[in-house]
Amino acid sequence: MKKIILSLMALATVSAYAQFGRGGGNPTVPSVTENVTEDFKPAMNNQSNHQYPMVNSQRMVRAQISAPNATSVGLDIDGKIYSMTKNENGVWTGTSAPQDPGFHYYQLNIDGASVPDPGSLYYYGASRWGSGIEVPSDDQDFWQVKNVPQGTMNEVYYYSSVTEKMRHCYIYFPNEYYTNTTKKFPVLYLMHGMGENEHGWAEQGHTAQIMDNLIAQKKAVPFIIVIDCLDAQPAGQQGGGMGGFGGQRPGGPSADAQGQAPQGGQRRGGFGGGFMMGGAFGDVLIKDIIPMVEKNYRVIADPQHRAMAGLSMGGMTTRSVTLANPKVFAYVGMFSGGTISLQDIEGAEGYKETNKALFMSCGGKENMGVMEAAENLKKAGINATGYISEGTAHEWHTWRRSLYQFVQLCFK
Amino acid sequence: MKKIILSLMALATVSAYAQFGRGGGNPTVPSVTENVTEDFKPAMNNQSNHQYPMVNSQRMVRAQISAPNATSVGLDIDGKIYSMTKNENGVWTGTSAPQDPGFHYYQLNIDGASVPDPGSLYYYGASRWGSGIEVPSDDQDFWQVKNVPQGTMNEVYYYSSVTEKMRHCYIYFPNEYYTNTTKKFPVLYLMHGMGENEHGWAEQGHTAQIMDNLIAQKKAVPFIIVIDCLDAQPAGQQGGGMGGFGGQRPGGPSADAQGQAPQGGQRRGGFGGGFMMGGAFGDVLIKDIIPMVEKNYRVIADPQHRAMAGLSMGGMTTRSVTLANPKVFAYVGMFSGGTISLQDIEGAEGYKETNKALFMSCGGKENMGVMEAAENLKKAGINATGYISEGTAHEWHTWRRSLYQFVQLCFK
Repeated sequence: MKKIILSLMALATVSAYAQFGRGGGNPTVPSVTENVTEDFKPAMNNQSNHQYPMVNSQRMVRAQISAPNATSVGLDIDGKIYSMTKNENGVWTGTSAPQDPGFHYYQLNIDGASVPDPGSLYYYGASRWGSGIEVPSDDQDFWQVKNVPQGTMNEVYYYSSVTEKMRHCYIYFPNEYYTNTTKKFPVLYLMHGMGENEHGWAEQGHTAQIMDNLIAQKKAVPFIIVIDCLDAQPAGQQGGGMGGFGGQRPGGPSADAQGQAPQGGQRRGGFGGGFMMGGAFGDVLIKDIIPMVEKNYRVIADPQHRAMAGLSMGGMTTRSVTLANPKVFAYVGMFSGGTISLQDIEGAEGYKETNKALFMSCGGKENMGVMEAAENLKKAGINATGYISEGTAHEWHTWRRSLYQFVQLCFK
Repeated sequence: MKKIILSLMALATVSAYAQFGRGGGNPTVPSVTENVTEDFKPAMNNQSNHQYPMVNSQRMVRAQISAPNATSVGLDIDGKIYSMTKNENGVWTGTSAPQDPGFHYYQLNIDGASVPDPGSLYYYGASRWGSGIEVPSDDQDFWQVKNVPQGTMNEVYYYSSVTEKMRHCYIYFPNEYYTNTTKKFPVLYLMHGMGENEHGWAEQGHTAQIMDNLIAQKKAVPFIIVIDCLDAQPAGQQGGGMGGFGGQRPGGPSADAQGQAPQGGQRRGGFGGGFMMGGAFGDVLIKDIIPMVEKNYRVIADPQHRAMAGLSMGGMTTRSVTLANPKVFAYVGMFSGGTISLQDIEGAEGYKETNKALFMSCGGKENMGVMEAAENLKKAGINATGYISEGTAHEWHTWRRSLYQFVQLCFK
């Protein structure tokens, strides 16, 4: 497991931090000009009335920006900066190599300044609010908004006794929560990855659409999904968090967020201070979040109707929190978050008896041994499922597909 | 009234469009360096772990960005571009003149490129997702997140029979909607201004916090608030919208958004196509939104429990929609949105009998005659209220304060 954690750290670091090195750490390469199919279309998640960024049928990304007085402009995506070229009107254009299908963070670099692209919508990831682009995938239909009965994605603030602060989360309610006003529902607690926060599953994760569409097809039963943030610092502690990660990340999401946001009330500004894998967040989940949800909403409050899942660091947190609380969650999902072994489970009294389904997934371009791990658990009588997202890496399309698979196993 | 509409057009144009002229229409002025009090603090709505932008006690804004190879960098706020200066490390810093208290859109200009500031959170306004900054105000406490019973701000998609598309709105439910599961609630329909969309009241407007805090103080009764988007183009129509505004705004929010977003499902990308004051949106409100809300949620579905309000263009839309549907809304609010005359009301059969409260407000730096208009209506037996937001102009702090005042009048 240690090896997997280290490899996850490396992956997360590549995808979330080093990707946008402060000071322009990524190598600059020429814009792609050969064998480019000129069928570029505006990305599906551009700001309205913006033609750029665009994507072509080869999944190349083309960016454009007016910067008449600049001397160099680059498209910073997937760990490379593609140098863009200027036309006679001062407009710069550049094209990347083909990208994996799905969602990617990116940014522009203008004369050494790393900035969001004014043409894109903005997302939280790679430890900042900034540009993201949707590269079409063959199966993207499953997360589109469709004219089916709609649930709601709700923003909720609550008081945490652990951090002694107000915290912000999202709660998805299925359509039936509103139409069947006496029914109680199961709950999934769903976590983000490193350099991300609770906005990930609500926005680029398209959790509400994935659920609404599956419920309409009767492939998932209706349940509530609570999407919180791993950023949780116990009251009275300063700095710290994240063990080995902390020191490597000046400017990452962290410890002193609070000192820099003297007034609360900014839903996207970050409320907590410091990520702590499993530890402080586990406390917040068990002592604050679950009781808040079970008190305020129509919830079936027993382990058989409680699930936890997460991506990358959120998957590792799911592993540690469910092992530390083996009789609390019957359904467990780890998306690009490593594996659980039989030894882990046998060391956690009650885990095996409580568990109804255990799901482990990763992208086809990752190598996490999820199929083998699931096979081993199945032999021991555990209802384990492995899943590989074909053609994708440590990115959101892997995790959307993983959620799509996992929620179909839950509460059945 | 025509004069007021024209002056509103001018105001809206200044505040939303011309403010960020494409091609750098704003005049460049030197950064402020004299009589600057050096007590700058990070703005309260910065991205976590970002020191800049900052604000000082004189309400000056100071921006900073690393752009080592740039030759000119400017801070674009309030219709001016303040030229920033570079230090030996390639970091540019600049300071604006004092700003009004409250929330302002702004951007940076790097060698001719207008881009969001990577240090700020992003908001929709001035027809783009981009930077916004909170300048502290003496009374900002009323919209902060506090440890009081929390309502929820919900994202909802619904099908519009008028536009034949899925649309996105926000719905605020007070805490009591969840704790008292048989009670039905009144509803306020609340509209944004020009160059904005439904995200405005949910994010920079802090509607949920304003309501939660007032309800906790028993200064407002609990009710539902539906926040939709004026962008509504009837099925089968292309282009158009907005009458006289349309032609002036290449690149504004508009008509062909759909053609540029071939795949749906982007909550912030804009679903409709073309703003139509009163016209198409009025249809969407009456035929789609109100029936959807009254069907799906626990709502008291009569005129005495229905309110409509809006800011600027949304206030003008409130005026036109309520005059065109005089027996539908008992409570009416226009924030920086002009006035209603006795003649208007007497020309709309049933308006006077249906109305329980009529609220008109504007900033102290605007001149909209709201106090005189309210006085005239009061003499005719209408429960009209005028309100002036001291020291603010055509901006969000005027509208937050207006909402704070208006909701205390509603449904009592």
